[in-house]
Amino acid sequence: MTAEQKLTELGLLLPPAPKPGGVYQPVLIHGNLAYVSGHGPLLEDQTYITGRVGKDLDLDAAKDAARQTGLAILASLQLKFGSLDKVERLVKSFGMVNAEPDFSQHPQVINGYSELMREVFGAEKGVGSRSAVGMGSLPGNMAVEIEAVFEIVPD
Amino acid sequence: MTAEQKLTELGLLLPPAPKPGGVYQPVLIHGNLAYVSGHGPLLEDQTYITGRVGKDLDLDAAKDAARQTGLAILASLQLKFGSLDKVERLVKSFGMVNAEPDFSQHPQVINGYSELMREVFGAEKGVGSRSAVGMGSLPGNMAVEIEAVFEIVPD
Amino acid sequence: MTAEQKLTELGLLLPPAPKPGGVYQPVLIHGNLAYVSGHGPLLEDQTYITGRVGKDLDLDAAKDAARQTGLAILASLQLKFGSLDKVERLVKSFGMVNAEPDFSQHPQVINGYSELMREVFGAEKGVGSRSAVGMGSLPGNMAVEIEAVFEIVPD
Repeated sequence: MTAEQKLTELGLLLPPAPKPGGVYQPVLIHGNLAYVSGHGPLLEDQTYITGRVGKDLDLDAAKDAARQTGLAILASLQLKFGSLDKVERLVKSFGMVNAEPDFSQHPQVINGYSELMREVFGAEKGVGSRSAVGMGSLPGNMAVEIEAVFEIVPD
Repeated sequence: MTAEQKLTELGLLLPPAPKPGGVYQPVLIHGNLAYVSGHGPLLEDQTYITGRVGKDLDLDAAKDAARQTGLAILASLQLKFGSLDKVERLVKSFGMVNAEPDFSQHPQVINGYSELMREVFGAEKGVGSRSAVGMGSLPGNMAVEIEAVFEIVPD
Repeated sequence: MTAEQKLTELGLLLPPAPKPGGVYQPVLIHGNLAYVSGHGPLLEDQTYITGRVGKDLDLDAAKDAARQTGLAILASLQLKFGSLDKVERLVKSFGMVNAEPDFSQHPQVINGYSELMREVFGAEKGVGSRSAVGMGSLPGNMAVEIEAVFEIVPD
């Protein structure tokens, strides 16, 4: 089953691909790698899930925010390539949590994103290298920001 | 117009290329990519712009610090390659702001760097993928730190 | 002298390779690069060195934690490839310190890791590009987290 078929089967609804909030490209291709800029938990109505994790959001809400960030990344990839089937595999992800200083469950938060990628691209191609860390602050007080690198199918 | 010609036309003054403040190389080449280590807002007199953004520096001052960080990166590339014309394009940047926990305008800060890269390398080659985030602290209390990857012209 | 011989000569004891604490691969290979996920200062007994640097740990203790993080990365590489001699060189590292907001000596902390890499792989191949920065928080309150990219010897 392809990623696009999986998306349909899972009934996943992607938010509109985010417009860049600065001087950058959401997805930049170099060789067979797609460098994906930092994305946040963008909702259907084009607002972001905001707040500090460990204060304004609990673990479940933060994990949902990470999953939503993954959906925003899929939206950007789909816009860039026309189809998620252009993705060969997930290579690396950097998962950033807007967390209180005493928060410690960053991996569990970012799993919301990583489990989505595994669902869509499969256990073989949807699980890459990863870091999950806590930031001092994030743009617009977003709860989560994730950047990633994907391998793409050669033309 | 080449990047070096653009530098002259804009009258940009590069600081001295920073000496590494630890066990690392400022620029490491692998294949046709140049991995640039984290740079800070180095001034002509070899001191750094320091302070917390949102407390010691306002948005304009922080954006200037990000631009100055870009000039330091250009200085390191120029030292490494002899000429900025060895740069094919900007691939990715990770822009880190030494921000107060309630600061939210990280993209506007890092635009100071990104606009410089666009001026020097052009809208086609000078705009890459990017994240802009807030750190808990930075070395020597620098206001901004940026690491980047550039594609270089093959020999 | 090879990296494995160097390991023996230095009498370095690697901790057990850490099991992934989430949905990711500790080491992901793409082309001739090995992308190493964020690692922490894992000890022999499989616990981590924890605490805030600048409060719970001083510079020396934090530098030891960074070195220990390097040993954990070597353990993951050895598990992945069977031998460290599969490593061609260190390309880049992102060194993250769980530091108090007023901490400023991140490069000196991460040197604990970088000096280990230089000892094991040599001054030519063991020194790559690097950033050293301060995080708002880290998983399980680990003192240090480092992710890295290594070039590997082609098959």
